[in-house]
Amino acid sequence: MTYKRTIGVVLFEGFELLDVFGPLEMFGLATDHFEIRLISENGGVVASRQGPKSVSDDSFQSAPAIDVLLVPGGTGTRREVDNPVLLEWLKARAQQAELVASVCTGSALMAKAGVFDGVCATSNKLAFAWACSQSEKVHWQPQARWVEDGKFFTSSGVSAGIDMSLAVIAKLVSSQVAEQAANFAEYDWHRDPDWDPFASVVSPFESA
Amino acid sequence: MTYKRTIGVVLFEGFELLDVFGPLEMFGLATDHFEIRLISENGGVVASRQGPKSVSDDSFQSAPAIDVLLVPGGTGTRREVDNPVLLEWLKARAQQAELVASVCTGSALMAKAGVFDGVCATSNKLAFAWACSQSEKVHWQPQARWVEDGKFFTSSGVSAGIDMSLAVIAKLVSSQVAEQAANFAEYDWHRDPDWDPFASVVSPFESA
Repeated sequence: MTYKRTIGVVLFEGFELLDVFGPLEMFGLATDHFEIRLISENGGVVASRQGPKSVSDDSFQSAPAIDVLLVPGGTGTRREVDNPVLLEWLKARAQQAELVASVCTGSALMAKAGVFDGVCATSNKLAFAWACSQSEKVHWQPQARWVEDGKFFTSSGVSAGIDMSLAVIAKLVSSQVAEQAANFAEYDWHRDPDWDPFASVVSPFESA
Repeated sequence: MTYKRTIGVVLFEGFELLDVFGPLEMFGLATDHFEIRLISENGGVVASRQGPKSVSDDSFQSAPAIDVLLVPGGTGTRREVDNPVLLEWLKARAQQAELVASVCTGSALMAKAGVFDGVCATSNKLAFAWACSQSEKVHWQPQARWVEDGKFFTSSGVSAGIDMSLAVIAKLVSSQVAEQAANFAEYDWHRDPDWDPFASVVSPFESA
């Protein structure tokens, strides 16, 4: 029987919907290889930035061992960079994890937690300056769909997390399984981590 | 003040994660124009096909008026095509809605409910024969990213729902707002409803 890796996804009030559920669509399609756990500080119901609410499977205290730690962005990151309980938990779990992946401004949380010291990383393009301001010890990459540096994967904004997750599946399982997941979801997978037409886009939205 | 349209999203056990949260990412980014309600038969917590659970905002009984009815697919559709309560509710709400949109095998539910009689519609490519078997009165389109026929929008599998939703935002609000949402989410929007490289893809996964 194939060993199933546990994907531990951190939820907090104001998480960005697609940062979480884009990757989980893909990991969930590779169902023989991954088990998904949604984890929040105190467990219970957590509202996304867009409104829809999700149910935590575990609290920080009750969460099982995590093989792949996934950290989303969203407006809630602006509050959580000042939450020492979350930052300490992320740091401890990141050290134990086989692989750590962040989407969008999730990298700002990891940077603030000190997880990305000396690591090449990226973030959402519309909140890039804010992400960079969380740590000078990170080698921030302003143009990238995603960045892989050892066991650390960081993606650009929102939908870039889907491409990154397929790259993670390809690395941990196989290219074939990642390809099958993308095809099943009829998803136009961008396989090149350097493909980034959004590096130069300016938006009237407030940052993520 | 801009009128906010209510997006009513139907949840059932075994809904496909990205069928729901891909579109809601985009509608949620056009936050001045749409309000999101997750609706299930009895309210409460509903588990997706991939595992993660969402919280309903309303039951069928308590749901408010719906401007845009969104129906996802997922393995749960195999059960729900035989649920007369759901089919009757979909039919009644579809008649009242300004616009009706389905993702993936959500179109099979709408076909079975009789909503798509005489309508051009599409569905997931890997479950296409099963979708077609729900009604001979639908003009099924085997090759399309999405199909627009009057107030009815239907998309192909999973991620195609994101492209369709951006087209819906462009129609109901403006192309500019849709473009802003896509850019914010760093999403490579496929604007051509006829773009469909997945029509010929065969997958080893069981159908959605």
